[in-house]
Order: sequence, then structure tokens, then C-alpha cells
Amino acid sequence: VKVRIGGRTRDIRAVSMDARGRVVMIDQRALPHRLTFVRAETPGEVARAIKDMAIRGAPSIGAAAAYGVALAKMKRRPLAPAAKSLKAARPTAHDLFFAVDWMLARIEGGDDPRAAADAYADAIIERCRAIGRHGAPLIDDADKVLTHCNAGALATVDYGTALAPLRVAHDEGLDFFVWVDETRPRLQGARLTAWELLGEGIPHAVIADSAAGHFFQRGEVDLVLTGADRVARNGDVANKIGTYSKAVLAKESGVPFYVAAPLSTFDFATKTGAGIEIEERDGDEVARLGSERLTPRGSPVSNPAFDVTPAGLVRGFITEYGIIRPSQVAALERRARFGPFSG
Amino acid sequence: VKVRIGGRTRDIRAVSMDARGRVVMIDQRALPHRLTFVRAETPGEVARAIKDMAIRGAPSIGAAAAYGVALAKMKRRPLAPAAKSLKAARPTAHDLFFAVDWMLARIEGGDDPRAAADAYADAIIERCRAIGRHGAPLIDDADKVLTHCNAGALATVDYGTALAPLRVAHDEGLDFFVWVDETRPRLQGARLTAWELLGEGIPHAVIADSAAGHFFQRGEVDLVLTGADRVARNGDVANKIGTYSKAVLAKESGVPFYVAAPLSTFDFATKTGAGIEIEERDGDEVARLGSERLTPRGSPVSNPAFDVTPAGLVRGFITEYGIIRPSQVAALERRARFGPFSG
Repeated sequence: VKVRIGGRTRDIRAVSMDARGRVVMIDQRALPHRLTFVRAETPGEVARAIKDMAIRGAPSIGAAAAYGVALAKMKRRPLAPAAKSLKAARPTAHDLFFAVDWMLARIEGGDDPRAAADAYADAIIERCRAIGRHGAPLIDDADKVLTHCNAGALATVDYGTALAPLRVAHDEGLDFFVWVDETRPRLQGARLTAWELLGEGIPHAVIADSAAGHFFQRGEVDLVLTGADRVARNGDVANKIGTYSKAVLAKESGVPFYVAAPLSTFDFATKTGAGIEIEERDGDEVARLGSERLTPRGSPVSNPAFDVTPAGLVRGFITEYGIIRPSQVAALERRARFGPFSG
Repeated sequence: VKVRIGGRTRDIRAVSMDARGRVVMIDQRALPHRLTFVRAETPGEVARAIKDMAIRGAPSIGAAAAYGVALAKMKRRPLAPAAKSLKAARPTAHDLFFAVDWMLARIEGGDDPRAAADAYADAIIERCRAIGRHGAPLIDDADKVLTHCNAGALATVDYGTALAPLRVAHDEGLDFFVWVDETRPRLQGARLTAWELLGEGIPHAVIADSAAGHFFQRGEVDLVLTGADRVARNGDVANKIGTYSKAVLAKESGVPFYVAAPLSTFDFATKTGAGIEIEERDGDEVARLGSERLTPRGSPVSNPAFDVTPAGLVRGFITEYGIIRPSQVAALERRARFGPFSG
């Protein structure tokens, strides 16, 4: 993630381990106004940072959990309870479970825990870069691209999934524009995606989630790019609440809808989206904003954090192995070896 | 509008004229937390209250404008500039233009200005009650109804358009549930509709606008009811931004989508929705919330306040004359005599 500190631009990962063996995470709740960090010294503190969304975005959650497992081993704590508490931090993102299991296998195999977690984070970034290369040709000059939530560098240790093709296309000199859904209730679009695009100099505008339909209708959306929290074997996609609505609007307007995700997000063991648990988060995320109460006291709130976009609404998945159709997801399992990537 | 003041329930209109000849409007920007009033002594002050959205909702805007014209006449000011400034306050709601022209004709015909404006407000309420009676049979026991923005008593002097059938069905003892879209950026659903439903004791939950799709998909929406800011001759509907998205989701799930509106909202002179001006409001409505800035400084915002739902997505219009299909809107013009109503 490119950030400006004291007039200089530095490149910082959303999650990493410092020299003192602490897991350092950009506190995404404080952006875009303040760049602060959460430093976790135990697997429990990592789990807490995931649960409270100091760190978020499926691939970043996975990397944080990988470091959490490493911490347990480095501190000679029993691995099983640490793994269990990390996996229980949030229920929807597949990367969380994938990363914990991957780390347990590496440690079981005798790998150095810190080196293994670093390798996990490195692999995610390499895979995101490949997603960028494969996805960039989908963007044409003068296109208007809609994205939802944040599937950028913050969400993926660095570089991004949905935002990766935009970075590559921008570097290639293409002139395009991005509609940024603000993404209620937690405003990851307005706060994080806008901040990343501003940093990259990519032209964009933030809109209320409800406004996207208006722009679809007027022919002002040429392409939809989102990330994913989990992809089922049949190509159904769990992603931030509101993603499904955008897929339906894209269908209504004949606009292609693509999902960008690395291997770690694909859950081959879950047959369809019906098998994906949808996290229900605290109603106060909707009822309050900062210190302000929005709803009347006494009005109930429902706050599902994700929805499932059926495979039939997805034109393709942009993966590190190339763009595949939903019907090709199951076949991806044969390539399901996570680790260093050069493709 | 039923409000509790000092432990007693009072019934207050969203807009009325007090004994001293001031136009008194509930300041809808302060709800649900504080019940305060804006008191306008000139047509210009009424126009300002409309522009700043102290009063909003197409029928309430119309009634406020009617009182604004009455003020001009009562204070012996020239009518033409007052009418012009009122009509310029906001561009989309048809009731605004309709009410001003109706008042000019009444005053031209020698009617007392204050009595004419009161008659306008009375007529709106009577028509809303008829909308309630006609619409209530659409609601079945155990239904889940989705509504967007606020088309309740606050929006219509009293009683409501989209909320009127819900009031009637509730009075009839039906047990149903309402999903309340929070309605970014100004949160009229979270702030106003929730407050009205809470006051009526109608079970409901506030949701992020983006969450509605999830409930459609799970079969938890049986009916969509919204109001309208303007209906074109062909049945295209301008309403609060996000309405179109809900209509598309309703189509995808096979859920009926109804629009409730009185005669004053129908614009027979505009052939299709393409002829309706869509207001673009200040980007700060999206970028800020209260004292808090949400987006990074430097990120542009686009903030269209309305969208147009094509007639083909509307199952029917609930009017004071009964439920009609979009193809029957043009024929409604023959009944286009506004005034006291008993139907």
C-alpha cells in the first residue's frame, strides 16, 4: 500500500511481522484520515483485530491469520487452540480457514513459522499481481468501471484483487474512470477504495450504493469488478453485502460482471453458495455512525455483512491462473497448490 | 403525524399555517432525535425550507409551496416572482409545480389564499387516506414489505402514500413486517420511516440499502411499496435515488413493485422519464455525515438525488382513484381535477 508519511511515499503492507516479532496491521478503521497500526503479540490479539475489522479483506485476513499461527509457534503455545480461535474470528472469508490450515501443514512439515507466514503473504501479493495482468485487458480506454467495497491493497496485503487490473491498466496509460460504491454500513468504498485510487491518481467518484443503478441505466457503467470473500465449487460468490444487487443491475443492463480472487478464496469443499455462512454483524454498524445515532431508539436493525451472488450472474473469475468461467471453478482444484507463484 | 410531546400523543401536520399566518413545518432534518419546527414568514423562507430539505416528500413540498403562494398574497407581494422562486426550489417533485399553479388559479378566481392553501393540504390528506384504503388489500398476513426513503406522513402533510396502505392494514389487525431501506445519503428511511413505524407500532427493521437484495434473494420480500416524486405520462417514475435498483431486484425475484402517489404527483405533460430533470445535490451529503468526514479529501463525489424507474418495472400505481396499471396513467388525466376528495 503506497502511503505518504512526512512528504515521502512509502510502500507498506497491510499486514507484516516486525523485527520484534509482532504482527503489525494497518488499522483500516482509522483510514482515510489517520494512518495508525495495530500491533499484535499473541494469536488472540490477531483474532481480535480480525473480528473488530482493524484488518479486513479476505486475503489480508488470511495473511493475518497466517502470522497469528506463526506467533503461536514462535511463543511455544499449543497450536490447536490458537488455530481454533483464529478460525472463529469471522465466518465467511475462506482465506481465513485456508491460511490457518496451510500454516499448520507447513509447521507440521518443519518449516520455520515466521518464514512460512512471510511466504504466505508474499504468495498472496504475487498472485494479486498476476490477477492484475490477467484482468487488465478487460478494461478499455474511456471505460467506466464500478467497484464495491474495497478489494485493493489494504484487503490483500498489497496490490489488490479487483483493483489490481485497474492498477495495471493505469500503469499502461489507459484513461478510465471508477465508480466507487461507498459500501454501507462500514463505508470501505468511501474510506478505503477512494483513498487507494486517490493515491494512485486514478480518476473516480464516490457514490451512495443506491446511486449505482442510475449510472447503469444511463449506460455509464461498462464493467463491474469486485473481490470475493468465498467462492463455492459451483461458482457462487460470497462477497460484501450489496454485491448481489450490483450483479443483478449488471445483468439488467447487459454489463459484464467479473470477480477477482486468488486460489485461497476458492472453497472447493463447499458445493454452492447455500453452504456459505453469512455473518450477521452488530446492528450498531447501521444504527450509529461515529458518535452519531442515525435510527430512532427502539427501531430494530438487520445487518448481514455478506450476500451470495449466484454463478449465473458472474461473467468470469479473474484468477492468478487467468480468467475462468464459473463452470471452470471446480477444475481449478487440480491446480490448488498454494505457495510461491510466477505465472 | 402522531408525535409524543410531554407524554401525550398529538397529531401534527408536517406543514400548516399558524394563527399568526406563519407557515409552520416540522424540521425533518432534526428527526428522529428532536422535534423542532421551521416557521416561515415569507415565500422566500418557504422556498429555502424546501431547498434545504427541512420539508421534503413530494406532496409535503407541494403543500408547503401552496402556503408559500398564500403568504405572498396575504402580504400583498407580487405573485409571479414568489411563484417563480418557489418553483425553482427543487427540480424533480411534480407536486411543487402543480401546487403553485393550482394556488395561482384559485387566487386568480378570487378564493381566499389561506383557505385555498388549507384546502390543498386537506385534499392531499384525504387522497392519502384513499390510497391507504385502495392499497391495503395488497398486503397479506405475515407479508414482508420493503419500502425505500420516506413516503409517510412527514412526506405528505399527514398519513402517507406508500405507508398509507401499511397503516390501514395495521389498523385492520394484519400482522406484517416492513424492511426499511436506510436510504443514503440523507437517511430518510433510517431517520423518518423508522420513526413513523415505531410510532405506529408496526414491526420493522432498518437495513443498509445494499442489504435489500439479500432479503429478496432469500424470499423474504413479498411486496415493494414506494412513493414517487413525479410520474410521467407513460408511467415512468422518478423517485428517491435507489428506487430503480429495488425495482430491478423485485423483477429478478418476481416480487410485485407498486408505487403509491396522488394525482398531484402525475405529470401528464411529460411523456416519459427521459423528460424529468434529476436533481444533483451537494456531494457533501455523501462525503460527510454530521461533523464527520467519510471520504478522503480530494475524492470527488457524485450525488444524484433521484432515479427513474421505467414503467415496465411497475406492477401498478396505488392512487386515490384505485390501483391502475402504467398503461392507464394517461387516462387518469381526464380525472385530473384536484380539490376536495371523497372516494
